[in-house]
Parts: sequence; structure tokens; C-alpha cells
Amino acid sequence: MSKNYAELALKLHEEKAGKVSISSKVSVNDRDDLSIAYTPGVAAPCVKISENPDDVYKYTCKGNMVAVVSDGSAVLGLGNIGAEAGIPVMEGKAILFKEFAGVEAFPICLDTNDTEEIIKTVKYIAPVFGGINLEDISAPRCFEIEERLKKELNIPVFHDDQHGTAIVVSAAIINAVKLVEGKNIEDLEIVINGAGSAGIAIAKMLLNMNVKNVILCDRFGAITEDYEDLNWAQKEMVKVTNKNNEKGLLKDVIKGKDVFVGVSRPGMLTKEMVETMADKPIIMAMANPTPEIMPDEAKAGGAFIMGTGRSDFPNQINNVLAFPGIFRGALDVRATDINEEMKVAAAYAIADSVSDDELGVDMILPMAFDAKVTENVAEAVRKAARETGVARI
Amino acid sequence: MSKNYAELALKLHEEKAGKVSISSKVSVNDRDDLSIAYTPGVAAPCVKISENPDDVYKYTCKGNMVAVVSDGSAVLGLGNIGAEAGIPVMEGKAILFKEFAGVEAFPICLDTNDTEEIIKTVKYIAPVFGGINLEDISAPRCFEIEERLKKELNIPVFHDDQHGTAIVVSAAIINAVKLVEGKNIEDLEIVINGAGSAGIAIAKMLLNMNVKNVILCDRFGAITEDYEDLNWAQKEMVKVTNKNNEKGLLKDVIKGKDVFVGVSRPGMLTKEMVETMADKPIIMAMANPTPEIMPDEAKAGGAFIMGTGRSDFPNQINNVLAFPGIFRGALDVRATDINEEMKVAAAYAIADSVSDDELGVDMILPMAFDAKVTENVAEAVRKAARETGVARI
Repeated sequence: MSKNYAELALKLHEEKAGKVSISSKVSVNDRDDLSIAYTPGVAAPCVKISENPDDVYKYTCKGNMVAVVSDGSAVLGLGNIGAEAGIPVMEGKAILFKEFAGVEAFPICLDTNDTEEIIKTVKYIAPVFGGINLEDISAPRCFEIEERLKKELNIPVFHDDQHGTAIVVSAAIINAVKLVEGKNIEDLEIVINGAGSAGIAIAKMLLNMNVKNVILCDRFGAITEDYEDLNWAQKEMVKVTNKNNEKGLLKDVIKGKDVFVGVSRPGMLTKEMVETMADKPIIMAMANPTPEIMPDEAKAGGAFIMGTGRSDFPNQINNVLAFPGIFRGALDVRATDINEEMKVAAAYAIADSVSDDELGVDMILPMAFDAKVTENVAEAVRKAARETGVARI
Repeated sequence: MSKNYAELALKLHEEKAGKVSISSKVSVNDRDDLSIAYTPGVAAPCVKISENPDDVYKYTCKGNMVAVVSDGSAVLGLGNIGAEAGIPVMEGKAILFKEFAGVEAFPICLDTNDTEEIIKTVKYIAPVFGGINLEDISAPRCFEIEERLKKELNIPVFHDDQHGTAIVVSAAIINAVKLVEGKNIEDLEIVINGAGSAGIAIAKMLLNMNVKNVILCDRFGAITEDYEDLNWAQKEMVKVTNKNNEKGLLKDVIKGKDVFVGVSRPGMLTKEMVETMADKPIIMAMANPTPEIMPDEAKAGGAFIMGTGRSDFPNQINNVLAFPGIFRGALDVRATDINEEMKVAAAYAIADSVSDDELGVDMILPMAFDAKVTENVAEAVRKAARETGVARI
């Protein structure tokens, strides 16, 4: 890191005592104010909602309020550090929602790692929220938690570590392949190193976008049907990935492939491996803070396009390009879900936010602070929600 | 009501789409801001908290954040209208915390009425909160929920409908009796009409303050040991109230008593009943919006001091005199509990906020917008917390 962000972060968090603040949209300066914002006047909106449940969107904060829910089990790269230690991340996410998209969000940090208890708790607290953003919950529990909540709640549920990352990586690949003459997204063979929540979500999304072949690797190499110790989510993925049933370590299966996507650990990809890839290889190395391969090394191995999770290199894969606009769009149309079509629409909206003039090997994604991205994503998400029948207004 | 608060409230709630807003204490305008408030910098406070759990108070919003928790089962006088219909009240409470005491509060409206599920849910979401304010949960479930949460959490838990009301009524009685020559608080015989959560809490608090006798009545009259259909909380109260085992309807047991406290329904107390009370009777009629007896009728019956829940009559029993300062004080010293001593200290602090010069039959309580009350209550609560060993700093 070029600056000592750790020290600056400690200073900031201590000075402010956290980042999320509650404010009031109304002032309460005299008895009349009190009688309107609170008793007796407040009974009127309560009665309206009890008579017509949809009025909850009219008279309360629900329509623009998202819960950032974590159990602290997979916080950044720190592992299961617990609910309280995860709060700074969830507060951070909450303020990014507000700053980037005007979405209100509140951190919900749960003191349990039990799948059923998490599902129940989120359902119990759902009344005040218009959407649920799941965050930093370890795999494979995160899959079941998201899937069940999507089914059992009528508000959008979105696990950002999976889908936010998948959407931004997909956007990067959409634009990267434009720069590789003679190839389309349908021609790509992609190796994803890391078969956890992000890796699986990326694989699913790329397959939804009709890429030719995806191979998921974990530390022991490509996962295949005869691989032992796969969790149920990985077993599902084996059925649709690795079409040629390739076996072996990353160094074996990476040969001849077009794209490397890393959601694993520093140093996993070497210059020598990049040299064995197809012509003009695309490398997305997102281990944080140190990527699977450093950009200079990847370039030395022949990488054509190089992206990382870091802001101090070009082509930053940053979820902030996706989640604010996705929830903005979903909340705007009171969507009951954030479905695959909405996610793919978001990926194309991010990719299309880079103009043809701007597009280049060091500019395949818009910058994090490009204000038009959130609006483009929100518009694409609203449109896809309406077209797929999940918009309620 | 002198104004159409219902109509004004509907207009306000719709215009603003609720009252609670989330804001950010930090600005996020460039990559550096992002790297400090979010990744990679945010990992530093997470690690600190995982190493030293108490650091959660240093680096997050927890220390000043209260959950306003309801299951929507006893909202205002509207009954069990459900979690979503209760949101306007919980949002209102949340903004009063902020406006009156700078305490941040967030509405948690639970989609379950099950006692055990509510207890578990509040425990699971507790990590991000420095205190729990229970609100509008029906009796007798509210007693067990509060009692269990007080035992099982190490942050203060406070059911405002019980204790907030009890504290303000007690403050009113403390001051009222100063105006009745020859009587002290220990001499008082008090009838409480309404044996739900507020009535029981008021009875407990008055007994803690050593009043001579308290009789709890419900719609069938004074509750006694041989009364059928008492819930467990009422059975407990029978053991310590109604010392002379008086039986009969309110009109019977009110004879000769010094104080009437109503937390019941309009019209329960008549001019004729007031006429049978002791000399200089004190009437606290808090049914909302129409009290058990209207002030002019009570005065006609000889009431010496008359208080209601309404802001358009003198002597308003308004919880806003208590809960903001109580949580302000409890959070300031990181109290593990809000105990009886802290509640009694709060009642005396409210009473003492009326100076001897101001004190009069139409001025037994400070005004809701008297800014010094919250500070006086907070100071008294901090002191009592320290003296009783529940303050952590």
C-alpha cells in the first residue's frame, strides 16, 4: 500500500466512533412537532399500514432501507473474526450505499453462525427493510442462506461477495474481450482459481453469459466429479463446469486458456503459467491486498490485460461499481428479487459505462468515482426488473 | 385534539417517506477516502476488535447506538397491528432519542410474537447495539422478554412502556405530594387502574419508593389472591400490593385513597369516584388520547392535582422526559444494566428539574422541551450506575 491506510483507518474510526449515524428527516422543536412525528399523530400512518400493508412503503423508511447482514464468518481476508469485529466493514458498506446511491443501509451483525438461525433472524427483522445485502458470510452456508431468503422473503436479497464480484468481473471480461481481435465472450475458456462463494458465483454468471468453458480450481487443482470433499455447492458446479473433465493443478489446466480469474491467495499464478496461456491472456487477480500475481510479473509473462482488486493499479475490480446501482434500481421499482437478468444487465451497464474512446488495456472498467456508473446500472436494473416481471411499481 | 394531527402526520410521513435516515460520519470522495473508510484500511479496526472485544466501543457506532425493538403487538392503543404497521412509532422513538439526547437509535420491527424467538433475535442482533429499548410489546410477554434479555445480555435493556412511564409518573407523584401539606410519599395509598405492563411497572416502582399501599385494578376490580385468570406477572404483584386485601370494583377501592393512576381506558374514573377519595386527591389519568377522566370533571370532583398523557393540558406525563436521558446516562458509562436505583434516580432528577419557584398544581413536571431535563436525568443515571457497580467506564 502506498499510504499507511491501516493507521489512518484506526485514527478515523476512533475519532468518529464508527461511520454510521442515524439522523432525523424531521425536526422536533415543539409540542406540535412531537404530536405529528410521534403521538398522537403517528397513529394515523400506523392505522393506514395495518389496513393496507403496501402503505409501509408510503409512510416509513422501508422503501429505501437495506440491511447489511453479516455473521462475521468471512470478513475480508480475516476469516471468522465474529460479529463485533466485522462491524467496521458493515458500517463501511452501509455508508457506501448512501454515498454512492442515496440508499440508506444499516449494519446487522449477527451473533450466530448457524444457517437456520441466520435465515430466521433475517426474516424476523425484514419488516423495516426494503432489501437485504448479505456480506462476508462463509461458504457454503452463504449459498443456502441466500437461496432460502430469496424464496422466503418478498424483498430483494443479494450476497455481494458472490454477485457483486461476479458482476464486476464479468463487466471487465466483456470489455477486455472487445480488445482481443477475433474472440467473442462465447469463445472464452476461463480458469477460476478459488472455489468459494465468489469463485462459484463468477462461474455461474460467466456460464449465464454463454462463455465456452469454465474450470474451477481450488488449492488441489481443478475440481472434477471424482474429487473428494466437495461441498454441495461445488458438486453442483462440477456438473456444469470443466466440460472436458480436465484434471491437475492450476499450472496444468491453465495451459491454453484465455482468462485467469483469481479469488484465492497471493502468489498462486506465476509468470511461467501466464506464458502457457492462449494468445493475449486476460488476468483478473483479485486476492487482497496482494494479488495472485503482481501486474509487472504478469505483463512479463505476456498478460495482455491485467486487473486486480487494488486501486493503485489500473483496472480495479471494485464492487462499488455494482452494488449501489443494483440496490438503487431494485428499490426504485420495489423489485421482489434481484434475478440473473438484472445481474447480467448490471454487468453490461458497467461495461458500457466505458466509452469506445476510453476503452483500452488499462481502462476496461469505469473508475469507482465515476458518478454515471451507478445511474447506468440502476437504469439497467430497473429495466430488467420490469421486463422479467419482478418490479412491483 | 386541537389540531388535526392525524392528517398532518399522514402528510409528513408520506412527504419524507418515514423519519429515520442513515448518514455517514465520514465523506467518501476519492480513492484515499475509500481505502480508509473501507478496504483495505478498514481491516485494521476489525483486527483490533477481534484481539480486544472492548475495542468495539472505540472503533464502531455501538457505544451510542440503541435498538428500538417491537413486535407490533401493543402499538399505542391500537393493539396487535403487526411489525410493519408499528414502524412509524419505532421510527418516531428513534428520532426522539437523537433529537433529545444525541443517542443514535434504529427501529427493529420483528415479524414474530413468539417470546423465545424475540429473545433469541434480539440477542443475535445485539453486537451492533449499545442498548436495547423494548417498545409496544404486549403483556405478559414483555416481562419475560425484558427479564431474560437483561440477564443474558451485557448491555442495558429497558422496556419503555413499563419503566419510562413508571419513572415519569413517579416523578409527578414525588412533586405532587410536596404540595399536599402533612403527607409524604411514604404515606400514600395509591390505586392503579390497569394491570398490564405499565400498571405493573408503576406499582413496582412506587413500592420501591416506599409508598404505603398500592392497589392494582383491572376491569373487574382490585386484583387479589383469589382472583382468577391472573397471569404470572399479576400473581407476583398480588403478593406485594393491596395490603388489606381490599375487594371490589374501582369505585369501591378508590374510596379514601390519595392517588389515582390510570393506564386503562377513557371514562373509567368519574367525578363521583373522585369525590370519595382522600383530601386533596392526586389524579394521573393517562389513557390516550382520551384520559380516564377529563381534567374539568376531575377538578369538579375535587381533584387537587391532575395529570394526563396529553400535551394540551397541564402536567403531561410524557416518557420523553425519561428515556432519552436514561439511555444517554447508561451509554455514557457503558452500563451493563439499567437497574432500579438508576430508575429511581431518574425519577428524582425529573422531579428536581422543577424548581421550588416553578412548582405548583399545574406545574409538577418539567416541560417536554426543557433541555436541562435530559442532562439532569443522564447525570443522575451515570451517578447511580457508578454507585451500584454497573458502570464499565
